[in-house]
Formats: sequence, structure tokens, C-alpha cells
Amino acid sequence: MRNIKLIIEYDGSCFYGFQKQKNVRTIQEEIEKAIFIVTKEECSLIGSSRTDTGVHARGFVANFLTNSMIPANKFREALNCKLPDDISILYSEEVDLEFHSRYASKGKTYCYTIINREAPLTIERNYAFHHRGKINIEKMKQACEYFIGKHDFKAFKSSGGSTKTTIRTIHDLHIEENDEIIKIYVTGDGFLYNMVRIIVGTLLRVGKEKISPEDIKSIIKSRNREEAGECVSAKGLSLIRVYY
Amino acid sequence: MRNIKLIIEYDGSCFYGFQKQKNVRTIQEEIEKAIFIVTKEECSLIGSSRTDTGVHARGFVANFLTNSMIPANKFREALNCKLPDDISILYSEEVDLEFHSRYASKGKTYCYTIINREAPLTIERNYAFHHRGKINIEKMKQACEYFIGKHDFKAFKSSGGSTKTTIRTIHDLHIEENDEIIKIYVTGDGFLYNMVRIIVGTLLRVGKEKISPEDIKSIIKSRNREEAGECVSAKGLSLIRVYY
Repeated sequence: MRNIKLIIEYDGSCFYGFQKQKNVRTIQEEIEKAIFIVTKEECSLIGSSRTDTGVHARGFVANFLTNSMIPANKFREALNCKLPDDISILYSEEVDLEFHSRYASKGKTYCYTIINREAPLTIERNYAFHHRGKINIEKMKQACEYFIGKHDFKAFKSSGGSTKTTIRTIHDLHIEENDEIIKIYVTGDGFLYNMVRIIVGTLLRVGKEKISPEDIKSIIKSRNREEAGECVSAKGLSLIRVYY
Repeated sequence: MRNIKLIIEYDGSCFYGFQKQKNVRTIQEEIEKAIFIVTKEECSLIGSSRTDTGVHARGFVANFLTNSMIPANKFREALNCKLPDDISILYSEEVDLEFHSRYASKGKTYCYTIINREAPLTIERNYAFHHRGKINIEKMKQACEYFIGKHDFKAFKSSGGSTKTTIRTIHDLHIEENDEIIKIYVTGDGFLYNMVRIIVGTLLRVGKEKISPEDIKSIIKSRNREEAGECVSAKGLSLIRVYY
């Protein structure tokens, strides 16, 4: 038995997220079907996280056990030949049998893209959040500082999703802007349900000057979902990297 | 009568180019339909160029004559409300009655995107050309120099398309690379049929070291289409700006 680790890119626009569910198209099911064609084995693909409907990935990690003797680095090409055009295996390698892409994860980086302009989006309409009206980026950058560190992020979690604790550590949160494109990068040891999208929604409130950067402190302290901003659209979100 | 100039962005993936044709979806027809809804006038939208099936635009220019009294800067919003989600009016203004977006054009900038990696594309699959295998970017950059200036570009024109002369001036041709993404920017006073895509195909031949950068000189001189490289896929091409 061998354990194969995959690094995966996907366009989440036409998927109901990673995890297999009845009657809807998921990344897990598409990859498991491709593995079956290639190895003739039914396998259970373990994903590093769930990712919601519409969320994209540049470096999702998953692993599966197989008896196939296909060289590990050849799985990339073999699977890509059988996958639909919105999933691509970037890399495949053999790892220790104990490796579990979810449990072994030490952290993740996500990127959220906002396009700030009056006209509707076209090319980026499935890959960014469209925001009309002025944003104060400097204030958003100041607000980022207050998220960094180990905090109870209960105020930034949608209901649903089972976790023992709502304490997480954010290692980095920063904004890169280029003309009308605003990219928010966040790296942490783990994220609660919808946490990144609620953080972005709260940063946008700061950008719109409805709250001040310092207000982030009391919002975190409140542990109250109603104090934080809205959960912004999934299509602006991409999982960039998973750390082990 | 007033003359309204539009700056337009579109995702060309689901269009048979700009120009109206029977039984296929075109940008011209969609915008003329929106103008009709807004002004109740049948109009003829004049485009700055044709653009082929699958080509995208970030700054296409078009104009139309109208008797409508809608303020010029309000056409943007009014038309955007009626347009499909793959066309967006970025800007609208009133211009001199003599202004003609094609005849008045002094030049254009196009950008061609190549993604150079082994794995198939997903998110960029309709917006970039996928090239596997090594490319020598330095040699491609050297080759760019030989295109700049006033030349007879007959070797870089597909058959079809009517033009009096095949002499054009390229003001700038340069490459920006960022990891696996290669962007080729070209600015000229005008372009022959498929000229940008054939220039990129020829640059790729240089990158693959099938020809040397200096060979560009003799290819231009030959005025022979067969000497130049292939016409690469339309989906990597975007019209960035039109100059007046």
C-alpha cells in the first residue's frame, strides 16, 4: 500500500465545494472517479479542508492510499488526462503512510480578491468580489494588525461546522493593491467555518469607514457573530497553500 | 444628434468577436440591443476594430450617434443594467460629431498571456495560452527588439482581411514575466489580420530555440507567411487600450 499526495488547482465556479455530496458536482468525486479509471481501485480521497461552493484553489492538498504501481510522479499526468478542465493536478508524490492531509496540516494561506470600481466585472466575475464606492485602504491595512495573533475568533464563525474550540492563530494578514484590484492574504493555523470571508466583510466595513480599525479589538472580544461584518461572496476566495 | 463614445470591457469566451454576423452572438449586437432598450433608437455601433472569436478586451472603444437626451456619463450605468454579464461599459462620454472610433484610432496596445507549466490550466483556461516545456525568455526578449519600428509585416498576416498596405509601425513590444505567467505587450499604429497572434507564435519559436532572435529580421524581410510562426490561440489575447 502506498500513500499519494496531490497538489490541486481548481476553478470552483461549477462545484459544490470539495466534499462529496449526493446529486451535486464536487471536486472529491471528480478526482476519485479519475483515480478509479487510472488504478481500477475505489479510493477515498482525503482533502486538507472542505472549501465551500464557488471557492477556488491554487494549492489544495489531498491524499489517497493505493496498491497501484504507477510511479508517484506519474499520477499527475495520468489523472489530468481523465479530469475535467476545471481541475488540474499540479504535483503528485509518495508520502509516508501516516500522512493525512487534513490532520497533518499546520496552516493555510488564503487570498481574497476585491475589485473596486463602478462598472460591473466581466473577466473576473467568478473570481473576485465587486465593490462599488470608495474604500479607505490605509484604514483596512491598520485593521489587519488587530487580527494577527492567537485569539478566540467565535465572532468570525458562521453557525454550523463542528469544532472543539474557536481559538485560532493568525500568523499574517496583509493587503496588496494594484489599481482597482485589492488582494487580501491571510495565513493561519486553521480557520473556522466562513472565517476568512467574515474577516474580509469586517475589513470592508473598516474600508467604508463604518467602524474604525481599533474596533476590531472589541469585535474579537465580543465573541458575538453579530458584531462582525457580513460573510462576503465565496467567488473572491482562493486557497493558495497548505503547510505541513 | 450627439456622438457617444464608450470604453468597453468584455470576456470574449462566448462571443464570435465584435462585429455583427448572422446567427452568432457578437459584442456589437448585444450593445446595440442595450442601446435600443435605453434610447428606443436603432443605432449602428462603430467599433475601433473587429477582434476575433474568443479575444478579450479591457479597453475596447466604440461610438454611436443618438438623439437621446440621457447625459453622456449616464450611458455607462444605463447600458450596464441591460447588458449580459460578459460585457461591461467602463466609461461613456460625449465626443465631437466627427469622431469615428475606427478611423480616428492612432494606435492600440494588446496583451498576450502565456502560462508556462506542465499541468493543464483551470482558472485561466479561457484567458491564456498553455505552453508546456522550457522557454528561453531572454532570447524572446532579444527577439522583441527586431519587431520594433516601421516594417512591412506581410509575413505576419493571415490570408483574408482587406488592407491597402501591409506596412505597420510597432512602437513597443516587451515581455513581463512573473513565475509561470508570461505577458507580451505590443503597441502599434495598427495591426494586420492575426498579426499579434502570429508575432507571439514566432516569439515562441524563438523561446523554444527553433530559431534565433536575429532570424526575425529575415522573416520580416521575406514577406512570406510561411516563414513566420503559428497563429496562437485567440483566448490568450486581450485588447488593452486604443489611442486617439
